Amino acid sequence: MKLCIIGVRGHHGYVFAEIGSLADVDIIGISGGCSDDVSGLLGLCNAAGAAPAVYENHLTMLDLLRPDAVVINGPFALHAQTCIEALERGIHVFCEKPIALTLSDLSRVEAAYSKTAGIFLMSMVGLRYEPCFMTAWKAVKAGAIGKVKLIHAQKSYKVGTRPDHYKSRETYGGTIPWVGSHALDWIYWFSGSEFESVMASHTMEDNFGNGDLEIASQCQFLMKNGVQASASMDYLRPASAPTHGDDRVRVAGTKGVIEVMGGKAMLIDEEGEREIPPVHNPGVFADFVRHVQGHSKALVSAEDTFILTRACLLARESADTGQLIRF
Amino acid sequence: MKLCIIGVRGHHGYVFAEIGSLADVDIIGISGGCSDDVSGLLGLCNAAGAAPAVYENHLTMLDLLRPDAVVINGPFALHAQTCIEALERGIHVFCEKPIALTLSDLSRVEAAYSKTAGIFLMSMVGLRYEPCFMTAWKAVKAGAIGKVKLIHAQKSYKVGTRPDHYKSRETYGGTIPWVGSHALDWIYWFSGSEFESVMASHTMEDNFGNGDLEIASQCQFLMKNGVQASASMDYLRPASAPTHGDDRVRVAGTKGVIEVMGGKAMLIDEEGEREIPPVHNPGVFADFVRHVQGHSKALVSAEDTFILTRACLLARESADTGQLIRF
Repeated sequence: MKLCIIGVRGHHGYVFAEIGSLADVDIIGISGGCSDDVSGLLGLCNAAGAAPAVYENHLTMLDLLRPDAVVINGPFALHAQTCIEALERGIHVFCEKPIALTLSDLSRVEAAYSKTAGIFLMSMVGLRYEPCFMTAWKAVKAGAIGKVKLIHAQKSYKVGTRPDHYKSRETYGGTIPWVGSHALDWIYWFSGSEFESVMASHTMEDNFGNGDLEIASQCQFLMKNGVQASASMDYLRPASAPTHGDDRVRVAGTKGVIEVMGGKAMLIDEEGEREIPPVHNPGVFADFVRHVQGHSKALVSAEDTFILTRACLLARESADTGQLIRF
Repeated sequence: MKLCIIGVRGHHGYVFAEIGSLADVDIIGISGGCSDDVSGLLGLCNAAGAAPAVYENHLTMLDLLRPDAVVINGPFALHAQTCIEALERGIHVFCEKPIALTLSDLSRVEAAYSKTAGIFLMSMVGLRYEPCFMTAWKAVKAGAIGKVKLIHAQKSYKVGTRPDHYKSRETYGGTIPWVGSHALDWIYWFSGSEFESVMASHTMEDNFGNGDLEIASQCQFLMKNGVQASASMDYLRPASAPTHGDDRVRVAGTKGVIEVMGGKAMLIDEEGEREIPPVHNPGVFADFVRHVQGHSKALVSAEDTFILTRACLLARESADTGQLIRF
């Protein structure tokens, strides 16, 4: 499997965390996808035993090298266009989330995908694969808490010092799509249902000089199957905190409650409260590769990615307009 | 201070938890306020050294005994009418929350209150006074987390076996007013602001045969000062859990995060994470009594009670109608 990487702004770390354990994956070319410096990315490739060619123009790279798959990880606002360029060339896509910053761009990606056959597209919803979340989800799917009724997800990040592209809506997209996409993905995944409606809010006030970046946000959903779900996203985690993110999800069902917090999955049911022994499983990049190589079906389909992206963008629209939005 | 008690359906336990430590409070009369058996209540009075007269008709009791204050704790749907009857007689009111199950009843109580002078009305928002919540609130007020931006509150109860009056909307009022009133009170109290808008949902499905009782609910608010706040309420806590309620509030601000969970108040700020040493303070009944006796000003005013009750009823209306409601 010949792989190219475009861009250095997101979670290409997923690739390098797993590539050593994957057979037949060769990074043959990289490109910044813009004027970003790729020397760090090249160093990661070299450390992984790869010696990719470096291209200024990512389309030249795709046309000359004809990779099987591409990692898309450049400027957020270019995710959609780059996805389309890859799909039109019959190249499998592993793209940073969200794959589009506008509904029209999302529709364009969907249209391009619908014209392909046997080509896969997946976004980097890597937190699904964290052992604590995967453990919790497997327990929910196995019936540990009965019928799911209520979900609350939390994303809380340190704001730190952000590059300029976080400071403009045009280049950042918003905190709901960027940070919230994980929380919304958990809601979609744990509820086992599409979204019915959303009411959301966000604020740029008190954002420590970060331009348009929304420092705090909340979303409330009804899912088509009746599950009620909410999420909060903020950049208010103090710098002193032991981890970058305080990621949580609480799923309450008719037979118990499962909660992920502090990297652990806890269950309380009729037998009392305890940690669920963590399952270990391949991460998001391995899942993508194994799907493309035909070894297994990925946990996240292209349709799932489209549904999640639309949910992020409609939630942001609700927050922008102060209106309830039905999907 | 001559005190009467009407009803046995709520938290008259607040009275007996503190009456022994309060000077000059004499329970002189009790009434079921309906056909409820008052023998248990009488036993509590006797154990507290009181020998109240027992009346079938609570109005006869108020007119004959002319108490200074009354505890209102009978059928939920009669809270409002009983408040009005007491206010019209110039009697201070300590009433179970919510003080009204309909907006028209709430308006009637407000009208009756507006005609009084020097008469106090307070609802039993006892969870404000739990050491963990009071400790957290005092720290927030002292600036420990800077400017409050985002709040999430959680109420999760065991459903257990409920009396019939929980199983009809008419007599129960709904899970948002009954359980959620605490969460909404924390939001009102910690945000330091009135409510601007609410979007809510709730469901009676899968409620273990409890009629109209909503088994799970969620509310999302904007506050007038820009704070974003959400709450979830459910009866999904397993019977095996060590406590009846899993009460939580998380308050994120520009300088840190304070969180109440498991009976502790935790702070994370630039100096790291730690428990805030708990403050101990009088409870809700003592606060009421000391206010009426002129010793101190209660934490909760009658106006606060009206604002909270209206928020509960409008949140319920939002959940009933699926519409965003602006206050």
